[in-house]
Amino acid sequence: MTRPRAVVVVTGSELVRGDRRDLNGPFLAAELLRRGVEPARIVIVGDREEELEGALAEGLRADLCVVSGGLGPTHDDRTVELVARAAGVGLRLDEGLHREIGGISRAFAQRMSRPYVDFEQGVRKQATIPEGALSLGLAGTAPGLVLEAGECVVVVLPGPPGELQRLWRFAVESEPVRGILARARPPDVRLLRFFGASESAVAKALADAGGDGDGVEATICARDFEIHVDMYVQPGAEGRADELTSQLVAPLDRYLFSLDERRVEELVLDLCGARGLTLATAESCTGGMVAERLTSVPGSSRVFLGGVVAYADEVKKAELGVPAELLERHGAVSAETAAAMAAGARERLGADVAVAVTGIAGPDGGSDEKPVGLVYLHAESPFGSRTADFVFPGDREGIRRRAAVTALHLVRRLLAQNRDEPA
Amino acid sequence: MTRPRAVVVVTGSELVRGDRRDLNGPFLAAELLRRGVEPARIVIVGDREEELEGALAEGLRADLCVVSGGLGPTHDDRTVELVARAAGVGLRLDEGLHREIGGISRAFAQRMSRPYVDFEQGVRKQATIPEGALSLGLAGTAPGLVLEAGECVVVVLPGPPGELQRLWRFAVESEPVRGILARARPPDVRLLRFFGASESAVAKALADAGGDGDGVEATICARDFEIHVDMYVQPGAEGRADELTSQLVAPLDRYLFSLDERRVEELVLDLCGARGLTLATAESCTGGMVAERLTSVPGSSRVFLGGVVAYADEVKKAELGVPAELLERHGAVSAETAAAMAAGARERLGADVAVAVTGIAGPDGGSDEKPVGLVYLHAESPFGSRTADFVFPGDREGIRRRAAVTALHLVRRLLAQNRDEPA
Repeated sequence: MTRPRAVVVVTGSELVRGDRRDLNGPFLAAELLRRGVEPARIVIVGDREEELEGALAEGLRADLCVVSGGLGPTHDDRTVELVARAAGVGLRLDEGLHREIGGISRAFAQRMSRPYVDFEQGVRKQATIPEGALSLGLAGTAPGLVLEAGECVVVVLPGPPGELQRLWRFAVESEPVRGILARARPPDVRLLRFFGASESAVAKALADAGGDGDGVEATICARDFEIHVDMYVQPGAEGRADELTSQLVAPLDRYLFSLDERRVEELVLDLCGARGLTLATAESCTGGMVAERLTSVPGSSRVFLGGVVAYADEVKKAELGVPAELLERHGAVSAETAAAMAAGARERLGADVAVAVTGIAGPDGGSDEKPVGLVYLHAESPFGSRTADFVFPGDREGIRRRAAVTALHLVRRLLAQNRDEPA
Repeated sequence: MTRPRAVVVVTGSELVRGDRRDLNGPFLAAELLRRGVEPARIVIVGDREEELEGALAEGLRADLCVVSGGLGPTHDDRTVELVARAAGVGLRLDEGLHREIGGISRAFAQRMSRPYVDFEQGVRKQATIPEGALSLGLAGTAPGLVLEAGECVVVVLPGPPGELQRLWRFAVESEPVRGILARARPPDVRLLRFFGASESAVAKALADAGGDGDGVEATICARDFEIHVDMYVQPGAEGRADELTSQLVAPLDRYLFSLDERRVEELVLDLCGARGLTLATAESCTGGMVAERLTSVPGSSRVFLGGVVAYADEVKKAELGVPAELLERHGAVSAETAAAMAAGARERLGADVAVAVTGIAGPDGGSDEKPVGLVYLHAESPFGSRTADFVFPGDREGIRRRAAVTALHLVRRLLAQNRDEPA
C-alpha cells in the first residue's frame, strides 16, 4: 500500500528571499513522515499571486496539501482566496468567526485607543472562508482551516511557527485529515548516533550492508562531527532493518554512542547525575559554548555548577589558577594549559568533573607551529582524565562548534569508560 | 523592466523529510536578490524521480533555474540525467572530466587499499554531462554545471552547502549567467534595526507610512526582541525610500539602534574598543550565551577578557564574590545579586565594563513571587551603570536567548549613553 503523498506550501516573502530560514516546512515534513505520510515536496513562494496559484495547483494534486502563511487581515494576504479558487469553491462570511474575531479586534482597538472602523475590513476578511471549510480555531485573529478539495485535503495554517504548530495539533484531529492518516501506517524509526567516524565511512558501511530499500530508508546527517543515522522502517520490514543495523554497526561499533535522541550534553549530565557527580567547564576559544549547551538542558543545575570563560591569559591565571610560568613556557594553547584549566575549574568551582578547551578559532592568531584550528582538550574526574587535540577544519564558527562538541564527547567517554564499559 | 525570475530546486531526502533544514535555498535566494534577480520560489524535493522531474519542468520555465544536490556517483543521484531530459538534450562523456575525476578516484582508491574497478562506474557517471553544458569545476568528484535550455539558464550545483557556495561564485562568472544578470539591476538595500519596539508597532509604522510599493519592498523580521527591517529599493525609487524611511523612523526613533548589518555584539565590542575599554560577563540562566555571542566576533579578544558562568550559588560566591548574606536576603534572582555579579566580574576579571544576567529560564524553578521568565540584568562601567528586569515570555531557550540579547543591548545603551548621545 503506497503511503499518502503530501505537499507543503509555505508562503512568505522573507522566506523566498532567503532573509529568514523556513521552520514550518521541516516541522510539517517531520510530522507527516512520522505519521506515515510521504512529504513529497516543500515549495516556498513569496507574495506574488501567480506563484502561490501555481504552487497550490500542483499541491492540490497530492493527497494532502498543507499551506502556511498569508492569513493576515491585509489585502496582501491572499492565501484563503487562492485556496478557494484552486479548489473551485466560493467564499462565505462565517458569522461565528465574524463575531469572535470582531470581539478580539474591538478589545484591541479599545486598548490602543483606535476606532474599530479601522479594523472592520480586516475582520470581515479573516472571517471569510472557503465554502465547505472547517475552522481549526484562531491563532490571533486568523483561523486555521481544513477543506476537502476533490481527492485532496487542504490544511491552511498561519505563518508564525508557534501558531502553526499549535493549530496543526487540531488539524491532525480533524475528520478529513484523520481520513488521510487512516490510510497511512507510521514507520518505526531507529536512531544511531556516531562520533569520531567520517560521514563517508558511515555511508560506505550503509552501502556495503545493502543500503536503502525493501521497506527501510536511512538518512545520514553529519552535524559537527556527529553522524546521525535515522532508519525509517515500514511495517513488515523489521527483519531487514535488524540486519541492516547490525551490519552498519559492526565496522563502526567503537564510534556508536547513542541509540536514542538524547543530545550529547544530556548524556553527559545523565552520566554525572547517575553517580552523584558535579560538573564545571573552563573554556577559551569556545567562549561559553560548552556551558551554554549543558545549560540548555532543563534540570542541568542538578549537575552543572558553572564555568569560566577565560579568554585573556590574565583570567586563566586569576580565575583558574593556571601558573604564570606554565603559560609562559607552553603557551595558552597547549595540552599543559588545558590540563591546568581543568584542574583549576574543579578546584575553584568545587566540581567533581571538569572539561577544559583551549585553542585557536581564527581567522587570525595562527602560526606555522600552532595553526588556526588547533585545539587542546582535557577532561578530569576523580577517577582519571582524558585528553585530545585536533586541528579542526572550517571557519571560526565551525572550529568553535566542533571544539565544543568534541569537548562534550571527551567528558562523555571519560565517564562511560569509568563504568568499566568500553566507551 | 521586470527583473529576471529564478526558481531554486533543492534535492535531498533528509531535507524534504525535515531531518535537516535547507541552507542552500536561503543562500541562493539572497544571492539572487542582491543581484537584482527575483527568487520566485524554492522547491525542495527528495529522491523520487517524478518529484524532481516535475520540479525541473516548472523550473525551466523561469529565466534562471538553480538546482542543488544529487550529483554523487551512485545510481540514486539522478540530477544530471533529469536536467538533460528536461532540457531535451542528450548526455555525453566529457573526456577531460573523465581523466580528472578518474585521477582523483585512483589516488583515493590507492589510499583506501581498494581496487579502482569499484569506482569506475561512478567516475564515468560523474564525467557524463548534458550536451552543451559547461563545467564549473569540481567539488570533490562532482562537477558543477551551467546549461542553456531554451530561454532558461540552468545552474547545477552540489548539495553540501560549502561546496555549493564555492562553485556558485564560478557560476555567476559564467557567460550564460552573466547574460541573465546583465538584464538585472541590483537593488539598493537599506537596513533598519530596532530594539525594544514590538513587531506590530513596526508593522503599523510601516503601514502608516504607506507600506510597500512604488519600487520599495520592506521585509520585517523579528529576532529575539530585535526587529530587522530590510528595505529593497529598485533603481529610481530612492526618493520614495527616503520618505518611507523617515516616516517609519519618526515614531520609533528611540528604538533604532543600527543602520547596518553589524550584530549587537559587534556594536558592543566596537563601543568598548573605541574607548579602550575591556569587557567581562557574569551569567547565570543564560549559561554562557552572552560570552559565546561576544566571542563569535573575530578579534573580540582585543576587548573581551572572559566571563563567569555562575550557575550554582556557591560559584556566585566563590568566583564573583557575591556576599552570602546578600544571596540569603534577596535570592539568586534579584536586582541586588545582578549588581553584585557585575561588580564581581569587573573586579575578579580586571575588566572596565561588565554585564550580569540572573534569572529563571524554566520550565521549573518559578513561583508566584518569582515566575519563570523573570530576569534581572545589570551593566556597569567606570562612568555609571544601567539596570533592567523583565518577565520574558516563551520556553527555556526563548527566555535564555531573549535574556542574552537584552543583556547585550543593555551594555550597548550604557556605553552609547556615556558618549553624550541619546542611546
